[in-house]
Amino acid sequence: MLHVVIMAGGSGTRFWPASRKKRPKQFLQLASDRPLLRLTYERLTPMVPPERIWVVTASSTVELTREILPEMPAENVLGEPVGRDTAACVGFAAEVLRSCDPDAVCLVLPADHVIKDEDEFRRAMSAGVRQVEERGGLLTFGLKPTGPETGFGYLQVGDVNRTIDDYHIHSLSRFVEKPDVATAQDYLDQGDFLWNSGMFAWKAEDLLAEIDRQLPLLAQGLRRIGNAQGTGDQAKVLAEVYPHLPRISVDFGIMEGAALRWTVPVSFRWSDVGSWPALREVLPSDNAGNISRGRTVILDANRNVIVSEGPVISLIGVEDLVVVATPDAVMVVPVDQAQKVKAVVEELENRGWDDVL
Amino acid sequence: MLHVVIMAGGSGTRFWPASRKKRPKQFLQLASDRPLLRLTYERLTPMVPPERIWVVTASSTVELTREILPEMPAENVLGEPVGRDTAACVGFAAEVLRSCDPDAVCLVLPADHVIKDEDEFRRAMSAGVRQVEERGGLLTFGLKPTGPETGFGYLQVGDVNRTIDDYHIHSLSRFVEKPDVATAQDYLDQGDFLWNSGMFAWKAEDLLAEIDRQLPLLAQGLRRIGNAQGTGDQAKVLAEVYPHLPRISVDFGIMEGAALRWTVPVSFRWSDVGSWPALREVLPSDNAGNISRGRTVILDANRNVIVSEGPVISLIGVEDLVVVATPDAVMVVPVDQAQKVKAVVEELENRGWDDVL
Repeated sequence: MLHVVIMAGGSGTRFWPASRKKRPKQFLQLASDRPLLRLTYERLTPMVPPERIWVVTASSTVELTREILPEMPAENVLGEPVGRDTAACVGFAAEVLRSCDPDAVCLVLPADHVIKDEDEFRRAMSAGVRQVEERGGLLTFGLKPTGPETGFGYLQVGDVNRTIDDYHIHSLSRFVEKPDVATAQDYLDQGDFLWNSGMFAWKAEDLLAEIDRQLPLLAQGLRRIGNAQGTGDQAKVLAEVYPHLPRISVDFGIMEGAALRWTVPVSFRWSDVGSWPALREVLPSDNAGNISRGRTVILDANRNVIVSEGPVISLIGVEDLVVVATPDAVMVVPVDQAQKVKAVVEELENRGWDDVL
Repeated sequence: MLHVVIMAGGSGTRFWPASRKKRPKQFLQLASDRPLLRLTYERLTPMVPPERIWVVTASSTVELTREILPEMPAENVLGEPVGRDTAACVGFAAEVLRSCDPDAVCLVLPADHVIKDEDEFRRAMSAGVRQVEERGGLLTFGLKPTGPETGFGYLQVGDVNRTIDDYHIHSLSRFVEKPDVATAQDYLDQGDFLWNSGMFAWKAEDLLAEIDRQLPLLAQGLRRIGNAQGTGDQAKVLAEVYPHLPRISVDFGIMEGAALRWTVPVSFRWSDVGSWPALREVLPSDNAGNISRGRTVILDANRNVIVSEGPVISLIGVEDLVVVATPDAVMVVPVDQAQKVKAVVEELENRGWDDVL
């Protein structure tokens, strides 16, 4: 049976001061009045009933996740005692799913993406799922690039294996890490490269077999966690084993060396909302090019990104700024320096100002 | 006996979002960790005991005033039902004082100025007070100008009447309204002009006699208020009469036409803290020229004025901005446009966002 695994483990310091240790990006109402995680969940319920939707998140955000997704069974929220990158995350989910459904097929999705064209999204997901159900292997969804982006990894497609509901299922030729802009332009010109979206499909048993073959230490830890399911010891075993799992990504730890692997080019409107300025991709702007959420008063100000989690924000005569405010913290930074928010978070850590971290 | 009257009736929209209808500028901790009103009070206690210090403020801020000045008798806080400009304010105080002390001498001071050199301040005040005690008339303190300021009115001095404790007491030749910069430079070059500080001294009976002579309608209203003192009807009479008092300033309604008037040039370091950027006159800056109050994280940012009433404010890579934050409102404006905060307050009023007004 098809299960969806939502990966909600990100820490998201890029969205300070809205994001905090106990409320990372996926819990923020960045794109609408619902948190990104909730939007992701609602995008999937037309495909899969709540009892077959699972969320893997940090232990510290398990309760918050349950509050945001009250329709989902509480046990479907899997808490990671510590983050150990995505290979451990998807393996953990596969072990838990296989223990309750030996034939589980997993659609694995990040919690923090914004997707328009939801029908097209679900058709594409269904095509990928059908491929792995019928032919096995590990599948990754690739976005048709719309520009020479340097912020994503790329996938090179191989031959077409078959076509499902107008979607071409290709063999996956290779992964490449984030390129420079010239290389990205080459990829775009070549036409056989896709953006690596971080969305996957596989049978739980196929994923675990690949982990067995490629990452034996991870497999060993995951097996202990899997064997403990339903024994009453699972929390104890998880807390013992998880912190020692190898830390590696699913792309480079599993997909890169997988024996049978596929990719499906998809083209629904998508954003990973990687930074405050990226809100421009998902929110409409006013006549002066300002993007805003929350109560704002904007006078003679242009092209700003303004996000309030409560306070009224008033901007007068300023341009190209990101201004974010919560009741206990405010940040002002030019749009083209927004990545420096990480330096602020580091400084707050140095000062021990934990109340705003 | 000498009494001090602190005028604390200002509304101070120029300090939004820190200032609000129920917490105007004089109640803000702009220059230190104590409100400006408290600093003004503490500046005076070496001269006058608390029971002879009086505050005139809006009815809505009487309780807040009593909280900030707990050592002062509660009845020394005089509430104006509505603001009717400074002639009514000083006349009201003079009526109340005369009713409990027929020989009252009043030193009248704004609540929201910042003054360094406090000893010199008190020596100057004492000299002015002695002049009106001994020779009667109305006296205004004038600041020796340090530049061609266009934000103040000016006083032209006349002949020296006498010298008290090294302070020259001049007759007051004339008042002039805020000049343009060329005129201000002329005044500076002429050398016989002072900034009009809004600080006064007079006997209560001399002030009331001038009001009688020049503003008979005001005098009539004030007499009704004065006669009601101690009858148990004073609150009722005040509420009835005060809203109908003529609205005029003490400078143009009383001083300009006064029969006997003096001015004392003074030169202590002084600021009326007229706007957010004026905080530069009263607070020290960091190495990058930033002025800040409250918890801030400043990275690669220069010459900003940053004021927090609670939230941590983080500025990255911005210059010459005023950033002010409270838990429920934030303002960002270039230093050279800070006067536009008034337009924000108007817009909030138009929208009916009373919770942040």
